[in-house]
Amino acid sequence: MEFTVDRELIERQLEDRDYHVLKESLQGHPAEIAELITLLSPEHRPIIFRLLGKDNAVEVFEHLESTTQSEILSGFQDARIIGIVDAMSPDDRARLIDELPAVVVKTLRQRMTPQEWHATSVLLGYQENTAGRIMTPEFVDLQDHMTVEESLKRIKRIGKDRETIYYLYVIDETRHLLGVVSLRKIVLSETDVMVRDIMDTVAVKVSTDDDQEAVAKIIQDYDFLAVPVVDKEDRLVGIVTVDDIIDIIEEEATEDILKGSGVAAAEKSYFESSLLNNFRRRIGWMVLLLMLNTLTGSIILGHKKLIEGIVVLSAFIPILIGSGGNAGAQSSTLVIRGLAVGDIDVKNAFRILLREFMLGISIGLLLGIVATLWAYWLQNDWTISFVVGMSFLFVITVATTIGTFLPFVVKIIGFDPALIATPLITTTIDVTALLIYFMIAGKLLGFNL
Amino acid sequence: MEFTVDRELIERQLEDRDYHVLKESLQGHPAEIAELITLLSPEHRPIIFRLLGKDNAVEVFEHLESTTQSEILSGFQDARIIGIVDAMSPDDRARLIDELPAVVVKTLRQRMTPQEWHATSVLLGYQENTAGRIMTPEFVDLQDHMTVEESLKRIKRIGKDRETIYYLYVIDETRHLLGVVSLRKIVLSETDVMVRDIMDTVAVKVSTDDDQEAVAKIIQDYDFLAVPVVDKEDRLVGIVTVDDIIDIIEEEATEDILKGSGVAAAEKSYFESSLLNNFRRRIGWMVLLLMLNTLTGSIILGHKKLIEGIVVLSAFIPILIGSGGNAGAQSSTLVIRGLAVGDIDVKNAFRILLREFMLGISIGLLLGIVATLWAYWLQNDWTISFVVGMSFLFVITVATTIGTFLPFVVKIIGFDPALIATPLITTTIDVTALLIYFMIAGKLLGFNL
Repeated sequence: MEFTVDRELIERQLEDRDYHVLKESLQGHPAEIAELITLLSPEHRPIIFRLLGKDNAVEVFEHLESTTQSEILSGFQDARIIGIVDAMSPDDRARLIDELPAVVVKTLRQRMTPQEWHATSVLLGYQENTAGRIMTPEFVDLQDHMTVEESLKRIKRIGKDRETIYYLYVIDETRHLLGVVSLRKIVLSETDVMVRDIMDTVAVKVSTDDDQEAVAKIIQDYDFLAVPVVDKEDRLVGIVTVDDIIDIIEEEATEDILKGSGVAAAEKSYFESSLLNNFRRRIGWMVLLLMLNTLTGSIILGHKKLIEGIVVLSAFIPILIGSGGNAGAQSSTLVIRGLAVGDIDVKNAFRILLREFMLGISIGLLLGIVATLWAYWLQNDWTISFVVGMSFLFVITVATTIGTFLPFVVKIIGFDPALIATPLITTTIDVTALLIYFMIAGKLLGFNL
Repeated sequence: MEFTVDRELIERQLEDRDYHVLKESLQGHPAEIAELITLLSPEHRPIIFRLLGKDNAVEVFEHLESTTQSEILSGFQDARIIGIVDAMSPDDRARLIDELPAVVVKTLRQRMTPQEWHATSVLLGYQENTAGRIMTPEFVDLQDHMTVEESLKRIKRIGKDRETIYYLYVIDETRHLLGVVSLRKIVLSETDVMVRDIMDTVAVKVSTDDDQEAVAKIIQDYDFLAVPVVDKEDRLVGIVTVDDIIDIIEEEATEDILKGSGVAAAEKSYFESSLLNNFRRRIGWMVLLLMLNTLTGSIILGHKKLIEGIVVLSAFIPILIGSGGNAGAQSSTLVIRGLAVGDIDVKNAFRILLREFMLGISIGLLLGIVATLWAYWLQNDWTISFVVGMSFLFVITVATTIGTFLPFVVKIIGFDPALIATPLITTTIDVTALLIYFMIAGKLLGFNL
C-alpha cells in the first residue's frame, strides 16, 4: 500500500510535540490513517487518535482491528498520555481535541469505573461539572418497531447490569434518540403494542457539555428518574440518573455556602485536603478583604480631628458597622439564594430593591431609636446620641440596599451571584458606614471637614 | 340499646370544649361509641373521633356505616374543625390526639391533594417536617405468596394511578411490612418465582414521625427511589418518593443558608410573604446582635484614656475586627456545613479544632505581617505597627478557634449547629478582638489599665 500519509514526518512531529502541525498532516483515507496508527508505537496511538476530527475518528476506529481498538482505549487510562494532553493549554486542548464519537464513548465508559472515567476526562474533552463527566452508558436501548413483548425480552436479556431499566431509550441505527418510554408504560401496556406508539417522542435531553446544575434542574423540575445525554450530533451517549443528581444538588449548595463565606470550593472533603490546601482556599479572600478594609483606616485617620475632639465617637464605630454588616448580609443572602433556586428573578430586581429599601428604613428606624437611647444612657449627651441614632437609620438603609443591589449587578453582567462572598458585602458596608457616620457627626457636631 | 356512654353529658362537654374530661368519658364498647357518633351532629363527629385512642379508633371506625365514615373523613377538611384542634396548646394536642389508625390514614390521604393533606395536618397529629406530612399512600402492595406473574397482573390492574410502581411493598393481612421488591427484580425474574423468594426482607423504612431530613438522608445514602413509612405498630401507611426528597434537600439547604445569615426560615417564598413578615424574620437576630454588640462600645469607653492618648489606635479597630470576623466565619461555615452533610463528625472535634488553630496561626502570621507594614506606612511608628501586627496574629487565631468551637458546642448540647448565625460568630469575635487589641496595646505602649 502506498501512503499519502507520511509516517516518518508524523513520528517526528510526535516527538517534537508539534500537535498543531500534526493535526494538519493527518489527511488521507480513514483506512490509511488506521494503517498508520497500527504501525506507530502503542504510546503514540491514543494521541494520534485524539487529534483526529470527530467524523474522521469514528471511521478510522471502525477500520482498526479490535486488538488495536482495545489498545487505544487502554491508552486512555495511561498516566503519561493523560499528562501530555493535560499539559496543553486549555485553548489548545479545545482546538486540538474534538468530542469523542458516540460509539467510542460508549465502549470506553463501559470499561471504566466512574473514578477512572473522571481521571481520563481531559482526554475525553468533557469539561469539569458537565453532563459528559457524570453520565453512565449503562442504559437499555430499544428500537421503535419493537413490541412490548419484544422489549420485555430485551430488558430481561441485557437489563441485569444496567444502571436503570425504568426508563428505556428508543434509538435508530445511527444511535439518534427517537424517544423515551418508561418501564411503567411497558408493564401497564398490552404485550402486542408497539414501542413507537407508547414512547414519548418529545424527550427532554441534555448535551454532553451542559452544566451539571442544569441537568439537576431538569430532573428536579420534571420529577424524572434519569435524563438522556446526547452528543453534538444528537447521538445518545449516556444517561444521568437521579441518585447522582441528589449528590450534585447537595454539593452545589455546599459550594454556594462556602463561597458565601469566602472559602474557595474544593474537590475533596475537609479531611482529605491538606492543611496547605485549606490555607489556599481561604487566604485569597482574606488578603483581598484586608486590602479593601485598609480604606476604613484611612477614613478614620482622615477624621482624626473629629475623634480627637470627641473621643467617645470611636466607641460607636464597631456596633454601627457591625449592625450595618448584619443587615446587608441578610439582604444579600436572601437575594443570592433566591436567584440560585429560582425564587427570585432579575426582572423583579427593582421591586425587590424597593422592598429591601423599605425594610432597611423600618429596621433602621427601630434600631436607631434603641441605639439613641443606649448612647444617651452611656454618655448623657443628646447631640451625640442623635448622631448615633441617625447614623443607624442611614447605615442600615444603605446596607440593605447595597446587599440587594450587588448580587443583581453580578448576575446581570453574567456571573454567578454566589461568587459574592458575604464578607465582601460587609466590608463594603464598613467603608460606606464610616463615611456616613463621619458626615453626620461632622454636620451635627459643627466640625469643618 | 342501653347506653353506658352518656350522650347528653358528652354533648355538653363538646359545647364547653372540655376535651380532657371528654376523652375520659369516651369509655365503652366500640359499637356503642360508633352508635353515639351517629347520633351526634356532623360537626361534632370528627372531634369525638380524634379524641379516641388509636386502638379504639380503628374499631369504632369499622363499626360505623360507610356514609358516616365518609362524613367524618370529610370533616377533616372542615376549617372550623381544624380551627378547634389548632386552638389547643401543642401539649394538649399531643396528649389528646393519637396517631390515626393506618386504614384511616390511607383512606384519608387518598381523598386529599397534597395541599389539603398539609392543611389538615394538625388534625392528623403529624408534626411539621416529618415523614407523615410528606408521604403518599399511592403505592402498590403485594402479598408474599404471589408469583411474579400474579404480581405483574396486580400491578397492571392497580398500578395506573400509583405514585410509583418501581418499588412494590409486601404486606401481611394486618398491613405489617414484610419486605420490598423492585419492579426491576420482578421483570428480570421468571414468571413462576414467588415474591417471598425475591423480596428484600430487611427493608429500610421510616416512621411517620421521623424528621424529613432523616428520610432524605436514607434515600440519598441508599440511592433509593422511595422509602416506606410505617406507623408505631409497624403498619405500612405510605411511601416517600425521591422527587419529593430532592425538593426537601434544596429547601433544607436554603433554610440553613438563611439561618446562617440570621434570617428566620419562612414557609413562603420571598414575594409570597408580606413586608411585615419579612421584617419579623429579620428583626429578631438584628436586635439580639445589637444587644451583644453594645459590649464593644463599653469596652472602647473602658479604654478611653488609651485612645485619647493615641487616637490613631482607633483607626485600626474596623480592619482588625473585620478580618477576625471573616476568619471566624470561614471556620464556622466549614464546620456547620460539614456537620450538616456528614463530612465532619463530632468525634473529630479535637482534631479539627487543632487544625483550625494552626490555620489561624498561619493566616494570622501572614496578615499580621502585611498589617504591620501597612500600619507603619500610615503612621511611621514601629511600636504602634507592632501592636497592630501582634493583634492580627492573636485575633485571627482566636477567631478561627471560636468559629470552630461554637458549632461543636451547639451540636454536643443537642441542637442543630445551623442555628448559629454567622453574625453571632462575628459579633462574638468583635468583642473578643477588642479585648485582645487593648490588652496588647496597653502592655506594649506602657499604659496602666
